[in-house]
Formats: sequence, structure tokens, C-alpha cells
Amino acid sequence: MPKNTPPGPRDERGVLSARILAAAREEFAHHGWAGTTIRAVARAADVDPALVYHYFGSKEALLDTSTNPPQRWLESVARTWTAPVGRLGEALLRQMLGAWADEEIGPMLRAIVLTAAHDEATREKLRRVVESGLMGVSQLGIDERDRLKRSGLISSQIMGLAMMRFVWKIEPVASMSDDELVSAVAPNLQRYIEGA
Amino acid sequence: MPKNTPPGPRDERGVLSARILAAAREEFAHHGWAGTTIRAVARAADVDPALVYHYFGSKEALLDTSTNPPQRWLESVARTWTAPVGRLGEALLRQMLGAWADEEIGPMLRAIVLTAAHDEATREKLRRVVESGLMGVSQLGIDERDRLKRSGLISSQIMGLAMMRFVWKIEPVASMSDDELVSAVAPNLQRYIEGA
Repeated sequence: MPKNTPPGPRDERGVLSARILAAAREEFAHHGWAGTTIRAVARAADVDPALVYHYFGSKEALLDTSTNPPQRWLESVARTWTAPVGRLGEALLRQMLGAWADEEIGPMLRAIVLTAAHDEATREKLRRVVESGLMGVSQLGIDERDRLKRSGLISSQIMGLAMMRFVWKIEPVASMSDDELVSAVAPNLQRYIEGA
Repeated sequence: MPKNTPPGPRDERGVLSARILAAAREEFAHHGWAGTTIRAVARAADVDPALVYHYFGSKEALLDTSTNPPQRWLESVARTWTAPVGRLGEALLRQMLGAWADEEIGPMLRAIVLTAAHDEATREKLRRVVESGLMGVSQLGIDERDRLKRSGLISSQIMGLAMMRFVWKIEPVASMSDDELVSAVAPNLQRYIEGA
């Protein structure tokens, strides 16, 4: 049963809004944009629906906030792209595996890819995440078109692996060890990075 | 406005049920399992909701039927796996590109991957489609575990490319020519097929 939690003192606000965001990511990921209600998010977060409106304003704004990549993830991605080019495939792959396993970033990525299916605004956000996270900062190729093509192909492999392992959970990809995946997949990424 | 279309003579049944299925694939793909109603499907197909119930029985059964792969697609996939092993990467890739561009199979695949996000039964179906279509008939590797690993990795690349190109429509992958994609990606598939 939802408790009647009033807007509390300032230090409570962060705790409550983090709890609401975590619940929202779960709800959007499992039920999609159309299937998610503020009421269900409030129930899962154990707060009053009025508090969700008070903090986030609307379902649109709640989705937007709950699928905004945390700064520390953006920074980690940017650092990854500074790896030596000969080890970039492995670095990108380990970054992705770590992000999906992270208890804050994993549900955010999951909420983005699952909601992107049905919601144009989230699809646009997915494009931006892929482009900035996987394609935007790369220094690959001989010109801009070649750079985008290479990073698009890298994204296709990394996102496909993420879908198989973390979203659709198809075996044996879902349960292979990180090391086994890296030794299987990193050379293919390396070909997109450096190949002719 | 929906017309009041009564269950017609037998030869009309096929036409109407194909129209309902096409509308259902679109609705499930765009609005997900929770966001799709029989009423909306009926409206899109320009038939009475009662006819949808009459032909398909329930929303569950409608989803199930509209995401069942057509026999001709299953046969085409099985034929693809008989390609010489040295050209199998290209053959699998061209099979996927052709299927997504097909006006019946494309929407079916799209409905499966988009609905799989939110519906456990469809996710199970996606697993079966991937396993039978991309993993089930392969003769790869040195033993069963190696065979499944190789075909799982092949699936990760092919499904990731399909998501980028046909579902999320991220450039430049979305608009590269089939030939350009094949020359970029087939060698990577070939490494999963034949590599050490």
C-alpha cells in the first residue's frame, strides 16, 4: 500500500526523487510508454502520486528525467574513447558490459532501449545516446562519412550484444563471462575501428 | 470510420484476416502490448471489433498469430543455412536485409522485437525465432557449446544491425546500401563462423 509521503525536508527530497526515478525506469522498461501510469510508478516507489507530480510535473517529464544519462556515465564513455586505438575494441566492450551491470546505469539504458520502441522522443534520445556515447567522440576513419560509418558499425555490434545479453537474455550470450565475450567480440570491433 | 463488416463468405475471410493481422502488427509495433487495444486494431483495419474477436478470440491470440513467422520465411532461412560455409556470412546478412524489407515479414519481425520488450510470451517467441532462424540449424564449431556460442554471436551482430537500421533508424547505418553493409559486416560474421 502506498504511504502518504508529503514533500519532506530538503535532504529527503533527493532520496525520494531517486526512489521515484528508479521505480519509473522499471515501469517504463517493463510496460512501455503507453502502459506506464504515474499511479503505478508512485505505488512501486511507495509514495503518493501527488508527490510524483510535485517533483516531475508530468509523465513526459518523468520519462525524460528517468532516461537522462548520469554525468558519471558520460564521463566514463568519454574516457573510454581515449584508450589506445589498438585496444579500443576491448575498452568499448568492457565499458558497455560494466554500464549494463551498474545498478543505476543499467536500468536507465534498459528504459531507453525499451521505451524507444514506442515513443519518438525516447527514440530521439536513444539516437543521441548512441551518437554521443558510441559515435560522437571517435577519431576514426579517413573522413567524416567514414568515421560515422565505422562508429555506426561498432554501435550495431555493441547494441546487438547488449540486447541479446541484457534485454532478450538469449543463451549462451546471456551467461557467457565478460572475458569470453571480450575475446570473441573485441577483434570484430577492432576490424571496424582499424580495418580497410 | 469503421465499417460494419459482418463475417463474410469464406473467400472473404482470408482477405479480412490478413488485413486485421497487418493492422495488429503495426499497432503492437508502435504501441506495445499494453498500449494496443482490439478496438484500435479494428479501426486501423476498417472492420468491426466483433470481427476481430470472432476471428482471433482474444488480444493474446491476436498477438500470437500476428507474430508467427510465415512458413516462406522459415523456409528461406533454412535454405540460407545451406550456403557454402565460406559465403555464409554474406548469405545470412542478405537474408536479414531482404526479410526486413519484405512487406509482410518486415512488420512481423518489427512487431516481435518491439513487443518482446514488454511481453514475456513474445520474448519467448523472439528467443525461438532467433534460435531457430539464426542458431538452430547451423553446423558450426567443434561441439554443441561452440556451435551455440558462434551462432549467438552471429545473432548479436545481425540483430544489432537490424535494430540500428530498421527500428531505431540511426544514420548512416539506416541508409547505407545493402552492398556497402555486406562488404563492411560480412567479414565479421565470417569470423564468428570460421574463426578460431
